[in-house]
Amino acid sequence: MNLHIGVLSGDGIGPEVTNQSIKILTAIADKYQHTFTFQHELVGAIAIDETGNPLPQKTLNLCLEADAVLFGAIGNPKYDNNPAAKVRPEQGLLALRKALGLFANIRPVKAYDTLLDKSPLKKHIIQDTDIVIYRELTGGIYFGEKTLSEDGTAASDLCSYSKTEIERVAHLAFKAAQSRRKKLTLVDKANVLETSRLWRKVVTAMASQYPDVELDFLFVDNAAMQMVLNPSQFDVILTENMFGDIISDEASVIGGSIGLLASASIGEKYALFEPIHGSYPQATGKGIANPIASILSAAMLLDHFGLLEEAETVRDAVERAIDLEICTPDLNAHGGYSTENVGTFIEDFI
Amino acid sequence: MNLHIGVLSGDGIGPEVTNQSIKILTAIADKYQHTFTFQHELVGAIAIDETGNPLPQKTLNLCLEADAVLFGAIGNPKYDNNPAAKVRPEQGLLALRKALGLFANIRPVKAYDTLLDKSPLKKHIIQDTDIVIYRELTGGIYFGEKTLSEDGTAASDLCSYSKTEIERVAHLAFKAAQSRRKKLTLVDKANVLETSRLWRKVVTAMASQYPDVELDFLFVDNAAMQMVLNPSQFDVILTENMFGDIISDEASVIGGSIGLLASASIGEKYALFEPIHGSYPQATGKGIANPIASILSAAMLLDHFGLLEEAETVRDAVERAIDLEICTPDLNAHGGYSTENVGTFIEDFI
Ligand SMILES: CC(C)[C@H](C(=O)O)[C@@H](O)C(=O)O
Ligand SMILES: CC(C)[C@H](C(=O)O)[C@@H](O)C(=O)O
Repeated sequence: MNLHIGVLSGDGIGPEVTNQSIKILTAIADKYQHTFTFQHELVGAIAIDETGNPLPQKTLNLCLEADAVLFGAIGNPKYDNNPAAKVRPEQGLLALRKALGLFANIRPVKAYDTLLDKSPLKKHIIQDTDIVIYRELTGGIYFGEKTLSEDGTAASDLCSYSKTEIERVAHLAFKAAQSRRKKLTLVDKANVLETSRLWRKVVTAMASQYPDVELDFLFVDNAAMQMVLNPSQFDVILTENMFGDIISDEASVIGGSIGLLASASIGEKYALFEPIHGSYPQATGKGIANPIASILSAAMLLDHFGLLEEAETVRDAVERAIDLEICTPDLNAHGGYSTENVGTFIEDFI
Repeated sequence: MNLHIGVLSGDGIGPEVTNQSIKILTAIADKYQHTFTFQHELVGAIAIDETGNPLPQKTLNLCLEADAVLFGAIGNPKYDNNPAAKVRPEQGLLALRKALGLFANIRPVKAYDTLLDKSPLKKHIIQDTDIVIYRELTGGIYFGEKTLSEDGTAASDLCSYSKTEIERVAHLAFKAAQSRRKKLTLVDKANVLETSRLWRKVVTAMASQYPDVELDFLFVDNAAMQMVLNPSQFDVILTENMFGDIISDEASVIGGSIGLLASASIGEKYALFEPIHGSYPQATGKGIANPIASILSAAMLLDHFGLLEEAETVRDAVERAIDLEICTPDLNAHGGYSTENVGTFIEDFI
């Protein structure tokens, strides 16, 4: 297979970890006789610094032409506490999601047995946790109209959803549930929000098309509790953009291994793959960033193109590294290996 | 002191636990020679069932006349999965918050040493956690305009905030920080929301009035992670209504003792005290509901009127009960005591 992959490694540790994924994808291409080409463009704070725009036109063009996008991370603290900043790195990512129509963000969260002692949760709580979160990614309060009064003393953000927006991501979540433990939990705040009541109505109406899937509902505040109290009760979670941001980040730490978690953002035509960790500026350039989340994102990319055996090979190599504790310091108490070394071990194993 | 207390015990386990608080407040009145009178009215699902209105006028009148409101819980599953329901129990609580101008919801979260093994978190993670959350309670997306298109295929909720709304709750949070460990964390999503940028700007501008308080900022997704990874880093958390709902519920379970957590909702003129647990319909009438959260809410009521010694007496009695394991089944592995028995033990100890 020929794949032209747009690489947007972005800020902070983004480039370091993405380089390891490229190494792994190249090893896979060699082994299975595919041709993967990689083309780099700027995004995020670095793109602002160099071009004034967090998503330069050249970057967007690359994403529109490429078969898939491999994304690193964005964000730089110099933009965070400056409410007056007119351009922010995050705008690049949000604009990209919108431009590519990436309406579904998919995040698997799994407790790795060998890492149970890294979890902040007790072993009996976290054990057997295996969740996939489907977060709506191009609607809701992220993209609704924003206002700021002229005197700067009042502001607003509009959250809106349509039936179509809800259905397309819900179909993916129902299908995922069918291929897993057949349970789908819609997380909303239907006791307060009109949009949540629409979600509940639309998703409930769809359930008859998926008679083998058991659908249930959880208010987001309760979901935030249940994720800590009993995460293994969940199979597939479906939720709107903002709740998905919060709940999926909460979920990401319960396994003690945020450096291992990958995500795919999918639309009708385009797909983007990224580790869920951020740009982690404090770690930049130190060779301590865990490349595994990025590498597992590359595995999700392979899955997306039906290269299931290739994806499995990557996952096996990663599990081998974890089992042998060939890990960066976040997962290895005895000092650990460098980002580069972990990548090379996984490459060699492939 | 004479206090006329409006009692809205509401639904589910609300009445059972509130009865214990009344018993405790009565014991305090006897011991310290105060006169506390209690007047009951309906709220929530039971008010809908009996009057068609989750907040009948008589109930609102009582709250407007009373010195304080002691609240139980509201909610009944028969209303939850019915998006078409025109009246919902929650509307009673929301209308009450608005009518009484209860703009600040205050929730202390503490890890009790004797209960550390009840926590889903590991001991070294949860130990020494002592947080107070200030949640804005009468603004934001809860109270903004809601729309539903005529054909029912599109919906919206507006989140809006003004400088004044932010300042009044922020002043309370800054003051709380001054009387504690002098750290205030604003939780927002300033990288996406205009309202969050307003929060950051307004709160930052206020910081010079509280030079002894260290102010920092956390995006809500990161806050949801930090609450699990390292809750003891927090002192006072300040946040808007919806984020406060989610983060404070998440925080409430980390100590393993949601049955112990109280809250106060404060405005310029009125104040309402309630346990943070819900109506817990499955437990209703079984005598297994933990009355301590409600009793500690009553202690917050005493604090509010400057009856600090009285409040301390209640807290001491509660800690005594916990230390001696005179607890309901949620906290007592050996079967436990009934709601009534726990209340009576605390009463006797006073
Ligand atoms: C960077 C930020 C805008 C983004 C979001 O909130 O969607 C991030 O937190 C994420 O979850 O991908
Ligand atoms: C019942 C519900 C409307 C309410 C809220 O969301 O505010 C509750 O969850 C709370 O936190 O008091």
